[in-house]
Amino acid sequence: MAKAEVSLEHLFRVFTKPEHNDSTLAKIERHLSDNVSDFLSQHVVTKKTSLEEIEQDFSSAHVPDSPEFVSSHAEALLDKLVAHSVNTYAPTFIGHMTSALPYFHLPLSKLMVGLNQNLVKIETSKAFTPLERQTLGMMHNLIYAQDEDFYSQYLHSAEHSLGAFCSGGTIANITALWVARNLKLGPQPGFSGVNKAGLASAYRHYNIHNLGLMTSRRGHYSLGKAVDVLGIGRDNLLSIDSPRQILEPEKALAFGKAYQEKGNSLLAIIGIAGTTETGHIDPLDELADVAKELGCHFHVDAAWGGATLFSERNRSKLAGIEKADSVTIDAHKQMYVPMGAGMAIFKDPKASNAVRHHAQYILRQGSKDLGATTLEGSRNGMAMMVYSSFHIFGRRGYELLIDRAIDQAHAFADMINAHECFELMTAPVLSLLTYRLRPIELKGLENESSQQQRMLNEQLDELTVSIQKQQREAGKSFVSRTRIEIEKYNNQAITVFRVVLANPLTTNDDLKAILAEQVALAEGHAIWQGLSKHPRAKIA
Amino acid sequence: MAKAEVSLEHLFRVFTKPEHNDSTLAKIERHLSDNVSDFLSQHVVTKKTSLEEIEQDFSSAHVPDSPEFVSSHAEALLDKLVAHSVNTYAPTFIGHMTSALPYFHLPLSKLMVGLNQNLVKIETSKAFTPLERQTLGMMHNLIYAQDEDFYSQYLHSAEHSLGAFCSGGTIANITALWVARNLKLGPQPGFSGVNKAGLASAYRHYNIHNLGLMTSRRGHYSLGKAVDVLGIGRDNLLSIDSPRQILEPEKALAFGKAYQEKGNSLLAIIGIAGTTETGHIDPLDELADVAKELGCHFHVDAAWGGATLFSERNRSKLAGIEKADSVTIDAHKQMYVPMGAGMAIFKDPKASNAVRHHAQYILRQGSKDLGATTLEGSRNGMAMMVYSSFHIFGRRGYELLIDRAIDQAHAFADMINAHECFELMTAPVLSLLTYRLRPIELKGLENESSQQQRMLNEQLDELTVSIQKQQREAGKSFVSRTRIEIEKYNNQAITVFRVVLANPLTTNDDLKAILAEQVALAEGHAIWQGLSKHPRAKIA
Repeated sequence: MAKAEVSLEHLFRVFTKPEHNDSTLAKIERHLSDNVSDFLSQHVVTKKTSLEEIEQDFSSAHVPDSPEFVSSHAEALLDKLVAHSVNTYAPTFIGHMTSALPYFHLPLSKLMVGLNQNLVKIETSKAFTPLERQTLGMMHNLIYAQDEDFYSQYLHSAEHSLGAFCSGGTIANITALWVARNLKLGPQPGFSGVNKAGLASAYRHYNIHNLGLMTSRRGHYSLGKAVDVLGIGRDNLLSIDSPRQILEPEKALAFGKAYQEKGNSLLAIIGIAGTTETGHIDPLDELADVAKELGCHFHVDAAWGGATLFSERNRSKLAGIEKADSVTIDAHKQMYVPMGAGMAIFKDPKASNAVRHHAQYILRQGSKDLGATTLEGSRNGMAMMVYSSFHIFGRRGYELLIDRAIDQAHAFADMINAHECFELMTAPVLSLLTYRLRPIELKGLENESSQQQRMLNEQLDELTVSIQKQQREAGKSFVSRTRIEIEKYNNQAITVFRVVLANPLTTNDDLKAILAEQVALAEGHAIWQGLSKHPRAKIA
Repeated sequence: MAKAEVSLEHLFRVFTKPEHNDSTLAKIERHLSDNVSDFLSQHVVTKKTSLEEIEQDFSSAHVPDSPEFVSSHAEALLDKLVAHSVNTYAPTFIGHMTSALPYFHLPLSKLMVGLNQNLVKIETSKAFTPLERQTLGMMHNLIYAQDEDFYSQYLHSAEHSLGAFCSGGTIANITALWVARNLKLGPQPGFSGVNKAGLASAYRHYNIHNLGLMTSRRGHYSLGKAVDVLGIGRDNLLSIDSPRQILEPEKALAFGKAYQEKGNSLLAIIGIAGTTETGHIDPLDELADVAKELGCHFHVDAAWGGATLFSERNRSKLAGIEKADSVTIDAHKQMYVPMGAGMAIFKDPKASNAVRHHAQYILRQGSKDLGATTLEGSRNGMAMMVYSSFHIFGRRGYELLIDRAIDQAHAFADMINAHECFELMTAPVLSLLTYRLRPIELKGLENESSQQQRMLNEQLDELTVSIQKQQREAGKSFVSRTRIEIEKYNNQAITVFRVVLANPLTTNDDLKAILAEQVALAEGHAIWQGLSKHPRAKIA
């Protein structure tokens, strides 16, 4: 590869002068501007099938000694990286939570990078600081709907914060539970607070043996990380069996009471508004009451489902979220913002003072520097993307997108139910559903002996894993898979296809094609062939 | 403001069709492409002086109900947001660690957003996963320089990880100390490990009363956050007095021994390679030996200074960094990558297994999903920006930039030393220095009585704060300020101007102009006028 010269003059040019209009990078840009979807279809052309093959292109651990020309590098990027990326715009890729983005995010991202603000402090972000506070306030309002006085008092207050903007839902969940922990184990006469004295001292002072967090078994894996990093311990994440995919309030109350009676303390109940695996929503209103009765923090992980609040028709599914002490929402999911936009929203504007910190050169007492109550330090101006989306879509625009996705999930569920080769495993509440391939001969399997069920479900599990991989590797479409407990199969864990209908470019015909592809793959599969010949008598 | 229609057809257009070439957003893009620096000079035109005035434009807590046209919104962004941003390209803004960026990051950021990969798992990132592993491996190699066998064994190993890519240095420090904590308090016969059992149980099992982290008083504020969130407690961050701006090894050893003899445990020593305030580098080689003698983890926070390793001439300043168990580096600092690119690098490829976690639908056992050992979950493809910079600059390109910045800091220190109105407070080790305005009449103040010193230094502190604010508000240039203990003033804390010379566009003439502006402001200031008349006799 041609090497560029090593000189300060050359470097200055790299800082100041873009390349010619006909350079590779300029062409990439124009193509992205004209039609991202077409750019991706043209360049994401998997030639290598295995990860190991791709790794060959990324195998040196040496920073190259000499500079490369930007255009040669851009060509290498197209060839090695872009070609083997995932086409998130493809309407038949319905297995993950990222989708096509509205085109305006591309030029906006360029503006964000050109400005290169650092939102940790006002000195390096200026108007971005009030913009981020306003964005958080809008989310707060969407959830908690306080009056004008409330927002005019707290939106831009140096001593308060309506939330924390961060890189994603995991950091948002950790931030919310960090606040909850520090509030519960706060300073008292004779005790400086957990933030200063540490967790072991706090347990001694408050006479705590175990501190638990309760959630359904469908809780996001970030909750496990949160209890690990916060020093609470993964054993104290109390994951309640949830064969109906939700945390049942009676079960939660009974479990919580028994837990407390044994001398344990409960830090929080975590309700989920849109589980990652099936899109179910916990009964938030009742869980809020349970949390109140048990005297603990109520956090709602609405990373996926939070945007449903934009829809008049569907927002009642989240009824009770306004009782939550804190809420996690990801704008990079159903708000169609690029990756990297999470938020933790706090009902009480004073709550995040439990993690407030200061330094000599920034985050000084009385400043409005956003970094004083965030887990992250330096952060980029991603809040602009959320702010702009709020304005360009408006609430009603988001409503249309949300409603459309949920309607499409129901339409897909109907297709699956009507098809003799499939079994719907969880019906859509939001725009997610799960299902599996199942020969008509095995219909009614839930009525068989538990031994029969187990044996046949295990074969079906194997089939699902195999078909999911084959379909992914064929590269035309992508459906993900997971493993969840299913009530009608005596709470047995079953491997299922998982579908997220978020991409507005996905049509019902795309969905039909995906089912047809799966049937075709199954028909060539030994397990399917065997099970299709399974005599009804044997399982009857 | 004109409202766009609310229809699915309109929304599809927003997802698929860019605006006309003469739209506002298209014009913004072209201007950014042609000349970012000119775009910023033209549009960042502060008309509002106070933050409160800016806040007026961001005061509503309502998501607008109806959609706006993209172009009207883009005009509003220019007017409300861009106009009141910080011009990070301005060569006279030498008060923070963000600077002008090489132009290629603008089109690359657009590519990154267009691809919208999620690096938590291979299914949504594919080639980005090996790319990120390679990037981390290159950093590992830069620090630890292991042989080819080492990298071919570990670079792409599912059971190992050479580091964690994250949004910034704070998360990197927290990740490194989380790993250190979990390694120290790991599983043993009869104990499941701190990650599972929690910190209080771990302290009981390991018979720990206090668990401390030692660093100099110049340690970054993120370390305080780390001990808070990890449950160790801020009181257990042992900040050692550092009037010479470094952690002195003899002091560290003596303190550590005394601390342990009192029955306390030491988790880690944190050496700093480039303090945020003055750019000093701790004596890493000797501190590594101290950590070894005390039997604790040695972490190096090289968020700022890590890139110095690219320079043959200057890398010896970091000698001993290869003895660190973990190292934090920010690519968005001296590697000129856009905000949002931090890394925690681990010497031992097995280290991060102490925080490894799994889930049913991703991060499965044996997968190479990057999310299995990161604190964050969903993450964007920022590693591409680092990867591309490594190739486009090459090691030698970075070397030139690093050497140039350090040389310029020395030139600036010479200017300050030669100027009778200034006092250099800390000389540059890297490209940072601190200084203050000080009338010639107060030269030799360090020889006066401590009472005199204190009284006069307090007046000078007030002057520094006032001039720094005036200069910032005038908007032509920006120097930051901080407060540090200074040995020659009996370790008194002094307020100083803080300068970071990172922007390659900054010339020595820019620096002269900044000093001249400060002198002009001082001459109109009552404190300066008073102190300039201060009779030499009085302080003699």
